[in-house]
Parts: sequence; structure tokens; C-alpha cells
Amino acid sequence: MLVSRYMAAMTEDTPGRQARAKAWFEDLRDRICAALERLEADADSTLYGQEPETFVRTPWSREGGGGGVMSVLRGRLFEKAGVHVSTVHGQFAPEFARSIKGAEDDPSFHATGVSVIVHPRNPRVPAVHMNTRFITTTHSWFGGGADLTPLLDEQRTEAAPDARQFHSSLQAACDAHDSDYYRRFKAWCDDYFRLPHRGEPRGVGGIFYDHLERGFEADFAFTRDVGTAFLEAYAAIAERRMAEPWTEDEREQQLVRRGRYVEFNLLYDRGTLFGLKTGGNVESILSSLPPVVKWP
Amino acid sequence: MLVSRYMAAMTEDTPGRQARAKAWFEDLRDRICAALERLEADADSTLYGQEPETFVRTPWSREGGGGGVMSVLRGRLFEKAGVHVSTVHGQFAPEFARSIKGAEDDPSFHATGVSVIVHPRNPRVPAVHMNTRFITTTHSWFGGGADLTPLLDEQRTEAAPDARQFHSSLQAACDAHDSDYYRRFKAWCDDYFRLPHRGEPRGVGGIFYDHLERGFEADFAFTRDVGTAFLEAYAAIAERRMAEPWTEDEREQQLVRRGRYVEFNLLYDRGTLFGLKTGGNVESILSSLPPVVKWP
Repeated sequence: MLVSRYMAAMTEDTPGRQARAKAWFEDLRDRICAALERLEADADSTLYGQEPETFVRTPWSREGGGGGVMSVLRGRLFEKAGVHVSTVHGQFAPEFARSIKGAEDDPSFHATGVSVIVHPRNPRVPAVHMNTRFITTTHSWFGGGADLTPLLDEQRTEAAPDARQFHSSLQAACDAHDSDYYRRFKAWCDDYFRLPHRGEPRGVGGIFYDHLERGFEADFAFTRDVGTAFLEAYAAIAERRMAEPWTEDEREQQLVRRGRYVEFNLLYDRGTLFGLKTGGNVESILSSLPPVVKWP
Repeated sequence: MLVSRYMAAMTEDTPGRQARAKAWFEDLRDRICAALERLEADADSTLYGQEPETFVRTPWSREGGGGGVMSVLRGRLFEKAGVHVSTVHGQFAPEFARSIKGAEDDPSFHATGVSVIVHPRNPRVPAVHMNTRFITTTHSWFGGGADLTPLLDEQRTEAAPDARQFHSSLQAACDAHDSDYYRRFKAWCDDYFRLPHRGEPRGVGGIFYDHLERGFEADFAFTRDVGTAFLEAYAAIAERRMAEPWTEDEREQQLVRRGRYVEFNLLYDRGTLFGLKTGGNVESILSSLPPVVKWP
């Protein structure tokens, strides 16, 4: 009987680890949705002028194996927010297998993860993105990151209060695990979330990491801390900003700046391109795109 | 003295041919701008609710050689229309030279062309795109095409009146030159203007051709006929449609459908990706993106 390298590399614990990671990502999803729904409910009705909404969950399944659940909030404070979990498995297409660690000779994979993207209506509340995942090929590792995208120019510096809070929260999560993580993962994030054609960063950064292989327990604990740090920092930023009224001009700035987000996701984002070009769930992948955008 | 293959391949006539092509593209630009401005002026003020606008011309120059002129109309009937000419020359980057006919061994090139993209405000008036160009490497050839993108579902079939008029005008231009052109170039267009991730065509097609090398005079005459056919067909379609009032729901359909246009241009369009990744004029390249878009 043929035993694939993937099967051979799986330890007794692998299915248990995948299940624990999946359960955490789903638990984090629930906590993020609850926190955003609370803020949505608490938002000032005179400012947002409509009733609060809640997340709508839509399960989907993948032809090759596995599936996920999209949770989308189309609300008053959160004009569009997506919190998605997926757990998929199968075989990478040969041309992709070559570029994925541990899949060069055996394209079998299992991937479980959570991804978050929030586009607030109020241009004074930053947009945010977070994703963490646990991948198994003939290797297994955690990867992920979180980055903040303020829409207004005056907020788009690392010295601005929201950026400082976001970074300091992620730094604390990093520092608890490795004194070099924050420096390395911040630089990786700055390098990744750039629009070369405009010579601009996407936002004010955060952290980005991949191929963590220091040991499942250590890496899982770190990934949990990143998720929690992200949630606490973003909820605090949104809560502080959401009562601020905005001007027409600020809304216009936001809609134009959102165009840069679209440019990044469609031109450069590896996850988006990978997903779209390999028959991923289009609705889930493109739910990252902002609800209204201008290229004036 | 080193004589490059590019120089060796240039005939006595090459500079004259480039100048004639350039002059035609600029003349066509002037005619297209004049036609769109006339429609913009003629549009019903009660329907469009603001004064007519005119094209604003902005010249730009390219570091490596040459430049162009952007003409942009941000109007009432034509919410955003760009009619751009450019004539550039220099050396292709080595990684691109390999993929361009006649530039494999000598990266020198000269390119002159015109491109048009129109996003009307009224969702009942289709968007349109046209581009024709004359390229010189160690070969020289014409290429181009035109395609129509109706925004409303009921207009998005080849049997719909606008699609039929557009196709029949382009077919007449093709048939005057080669009985097989329309069949070939229509299929090429259908193949190129697709969104594989959605399994959808971008619009209702048109024609697309490249590497025409039947002889300069014949190919130039064909390219002129395509430009004129495009202009006449689109002006007639816009003129017929522009008096039709539209509903909120139709405007919403339009804004969502425009998202597909953005997806195509940023994910697949070779010209856009080529331009952005080789330091082209970002403002000119991305002026193809619609003024307001929704991903609800």
C-alpha cells in the first residue's frame, strides 16, 4: 500500500492538532463577531441613522474537500465586515504545490484558518484585516498576521494614536513569545502590504508571519495571543472612534482610499490570487472588497 | 558601430509610418472627444441635473522616452471617460522582452496608440472600451480591439439591440478587409474579456486582434476602419439610450457590475498589469477604473 509522504509526516497528534486549531479559530470567530455586534448595537443612532444589524452566517463546501462558514455583517457602524473560517483539505494543483513548503513532492494538504476584514462606514474608524491559519503538508506550521488601514491621511502614520495602540498590542503578544518576533514580523508586514505601483504602504502595518515551526504548542499559543491581541486592540480603537462625527470630505477620502485596498487585493494579495485562480469560494474571497469605492 | 537588430529591421519608411499612425490616433482621439462632448452637451438637463462638462487634457512624459496626453471627461452623461494617446519608445525590461514578438534578442521598441474607456452615469447606457496601437520591435504590427459592456442584465446578451449594433458595425469594418477577420477577432475578444473566477464574460464582446502583419498600408487602413466603426457605433448607441430615465435599482446593478470591470482590469488585463509593473503612468493606466463601484 502506498503511504504518501504527507501521511508519513503526520504524527499521531496531527488530526488532534488540526482539530484544536480549528476549534480555536471558530471560537475566535465567535468572539470577534460578538464584539463587533456589541459595537454595532452601541453605535449612536443619530450618527448612523439606521437600526443595528447582526452577522449572517453562510456555510459553503469545497469540491475537493472541506468547506467553511462565511459570517458577514452589513451594518450601520460596520458597513461591511466578514469573519470567515474554513477547513479544507485535498491536493494542491501541481503548479502551486511546487511553491508550497513541504508540498513539492506530495501535494496533499490540510488547512484551517480564520480571516477577518472590517470596513467601517465612519471614515474616522480604521479598516482592519486579520488572518491566522494552520497548514499541514509534509510539514505543518502556523502563519498569519494583522494590519490596520486608517482611511484618513492624518491617521496614516505609525505615530498616530490608533496605529500606536494597534502596534503596541501586537508587540506585547509577540514579546511574550520571542524578543525578536515583533521586529521581524512588523518588517515582514511592511514589506508585504505595499502598493509598489503607487510607492505607498496599504495602511500603517501590523505583523505578518509564516512557516512558524518552533513546535506546535508554542506556535499555537502565539497564534492564540495574536488573535486575542488583535481583537482587543481593534475593538478599543473602534469603540473610541465610533462616536466621532465625520464630514462629506472625509467620507470621500475614505472611498478613494478604499480603491487602494482593492488595488492591493486584486493586484498583489497572494491569498486572493491563489484562491481565485484555484477555484476557491469567490464570494468568500472577494468579501474582502469594500462595499463602496471611488476612483474619481 | 553596433547596429541593433531593431535598427536593421527598420525600413526607410518606419519613422514615417510611426508618424502617420500617431497622427491618425491623435486625430481619432480628437473626433472621439468631440463626439462625446456633443452628446454630453445634448443630454437632458432634467435627467442629468448638472451642467455639461468638457475633456481636460493632461500631457505626461515617460522617463525612458516619449509620453502621451490623457483626456478625461468627468461629466453628467459621461460620469468618467478617458481618451488617451501615447507614443513611447525605449527598451523593454529583459523579462518582458522575452514575451514580446521581435524583442527576444533586441529589447528596443516604439509604440504609439490610442485607448478609450467610457463609464456613463446612466446605467442604461453601456460602458465601452477601445484601443488600437502600432508597435515596432524588430517586427512592426498593428493591434487593438473594441468591446461593449452593458451594465444591465437584459442588455448583456449578443441578441440585445446595442450588442447587435456594435457587432454589426465592427463586422462591416472587418468584412471590408478580410472575410475571416470578424469570426477570428470576435472569438479572440470573447476569449480575452472573460472573468474565469466567475465564469462570466466581461460584456457582450466585440473584436480583438494583435500582430497584424499583412503589410503596413492594409493593416493601417483596417485599424482606421475599426476606429471609425467603433466611434460611429458607440455614439449611436449612447445617443439612443441617453434619454432613457433609470431607476435606483438599475443604478445599483450598474455599480455592482462595474466591480466586475475592476476585477477584470486588475486581475487579468495584460495592458494594465504590464503598465503598472513596468513603471507606467499610474494615473493614465488606472483611469480605466469606474468612478464609483460597489461590492455589496
